[in-house]
Amino acid sequence: MKKLINDKERFLSDMLDGLKHRDPAIEVIEGTVVVRKDRKKKGVALVSGGGSGHEPAHAGYVAQGMLDAAVCGEVFTSPTPDKVLSAIKAVDNGDGVLLVIKNYSGDVMNFEMAQEMAEAEGHRVASVVVRDDVAIDNEEQRRGVAGTVLVHKYAGYLAEQGVPLDDIVKKVQEMMTSLYSIGMALHPCLVPTTGEYGFDLSEDEMEIGIGIHGEKGISREKSKTVDKIVDRLLDELFKYTDSSQMILMINGMGATPESELSIVTKYVMEAMDQRGVKVSKLLVGDYMTALDMQGFSLTVLDGEDEVITAIEADTGSKYF
Amino acid sequence: MKKLINDKERFLSDMLDGLKHRDPAIEVIEGTVVVRKDRKKKGVALVSGGGSGHEPAHAGYVAQGMLDAAVCGEVFTSPTPDKVLSAIKAVDNGDGVLLVIKNYSGDVMNFEMAQEMAEAEGHRVASVVVRDDVAIDNEEQRRGVAGTVLVHKYAGYLAEQGVPLDDIVKKVQEMMTSLYSIGMALHPCLVPTTGEYGFDLSEDEMEIGIGIHGEKGISREKSKTVDKIVDRLLDELFKYTDSSQMILMINGMGATPESELSIVTKYVMEAMDQRGVKVSKLLVGDYMTALDMQGFSLTVLDGEDEVITAIEADTGSKYF
Repeated sequence: MKKLINDKERFLSDMLDGLKHRDPAIEVIEGTVVVRKDRKKKGVALVSGGGSGHEPAHAGYVAQGMLDAAVCGEVFTSPTPDKVLSAIKAVDNGDGVLLVIKNYSGDVMNFEMAQEMAEAEGHRVASVVVRDDVAIDNEEQRRGVAGTVLVHKYAGYLAEQGVPLDDIVKKVQEMMTSLYSIGMALHPCLVPTTGEYGFDLSEDEMEIGIGIHGEKGISREKSKTVDKIVDRLLDELFKYTDSSQMILMINGMGATPESELSIVTKYVMEAMDQRGVKVSKLLVGDYMTALDMQGFSLTVLDGEDEVITAIEADTGSKYF
Repeated sequence: MKKLINDKERFLSDMLDGLKHRDPAIEVIEGTVVVRKDRKKKGVALVSGGGSGHEPAHAGYVAQGMLDAAVCGEVFTSPTPDKVLSAIKAVDNGDGVLLVIKNYSGDVMNFEMAQEMAEAEGHRVASVVVRDDVAIDNEEQRRGVAGTVLVHKYAGYLAEQGVPLDDIVKKVQEMMTSLYSIGMALHPCLVPTTGEYGFDLSEDEMEIGIGIHGEKGISREKSKTVDKIVDRLLDELFKYTDSSQMILMINGMGATPESELSIVTKYVMEAMDQRGVKVSKLLVGDYMTALDMQGFSLTVLDGEDEVITAIEADTGSKYF
């Protein structure tokens, strides 16, 4: 298996060791919990996390104005409740803790179990579950994908502003009602723990509606030019929204070169214009990846003023 | 060919159209010259460029504190002298222009021809040629690779400080005497204009000493764990330098996931420590890529105080 790793059993610990060199402002407690060295003294603390393989999510967002802690599981594997509990205890300054959970059964179960354990120890904890992936039509079953990073940013901004926990939850719930994503891949990712590709695609095929764990999409189709791929994805998103102004995130899946992300950007912006939608804020880059998958996802969000202000606010994260 | 493109003939123009959306502070003149909308009113202006395919180099560095213009050729193809001349004329504010040229015969010929043409029109122009790639032992023939971005940053800082053209040239020449890079790849890049991979590697092979245009390396070897790959590359670099303190850049080749760059970072930092070298400044990311090549390069530079200050100085580029 050709990966820049030393030992698949040490993928996570080696990665976090390297991350400490890259970002001297973070530290790692209990082996897998990334926290800011300089903990916040007041305001709601934000905890997120999940399996690894989505870098820079989530550890790259542990920074002023975004997350206070990221709980890192092994590749595509939920972290255990005791680690989530450790994160909560490390960052709670008395103003409460918000857990941002992507909608996967393991994550939801383990984060909510940690929430109960923390509450039993006297911590005030709330949680929100992100379900932005419209590849799955059933809302309850929708996965949390790239839109999760926008939740980090919005909630992180509100916490910086001193908004109380209950109000942050309400505002984030409201924001998530218009948060929709869908992704595609030209090449699957190679999962280091198994040495296997998530799926096989022939030279003229692409996968529409992929997940971020190497899962197959909802539809295997002949690969097309970018303008047609973009239209295909936007058709899916516009089943759920008819806003005339949107925040737009174009997210690289990990191994998509910058040049191709720029080409995608051109055609997405043209298509939005043709559909009469004004893009009030554009974000392009690798925000929520699936290891070395080649492809991209589109995330749209209704752009109210406060959300745009939050997204534009300074953060200590170099990835946002 | 599976790439996120619409038409290989429009790779460059589509990419620049997308880039304009991503960075509203830039504009594109004559189809291929990226300049800051808000031109610098005084101080030496910096122009670089070359073939495309190295994104974010060079257009991503057109920003306050780095480049004033990037002249973009087609994929892996030098821009023509008339475009370089247009860039010089667009950014010269009377304090002179510095051309930063990577050492490839086409780039050197075309940039130097543009320099002569500009001088004939009364512009004061100087140029430096970056030759940091020690995969090629002969110094005159060494290619310009990731170290070029450090030249942009250092020269850009000096220009911001109001240092005159001749002095910037002297300082950059001095800095480049200790600038060394070498790269490796696990997977070649797919060149969109030809639909071909730069080279073929079997599942257990890697290429040491690759270039940034899909060129083969100097040695094809059995792929190894990261610690051994790092040692192999550092052995090459340490033939040229014996400093005890270095600036270090770990550069992703375009499709190397963030997770693997972090793992590489761990082992490079351990190896530097074992070799008794203090890393005075660490940079990790995709700075100078080769489309969707998977691999990385290491660049070292003697860290004098002014160079470190320059590298740490604020820049408007989101890529540095």
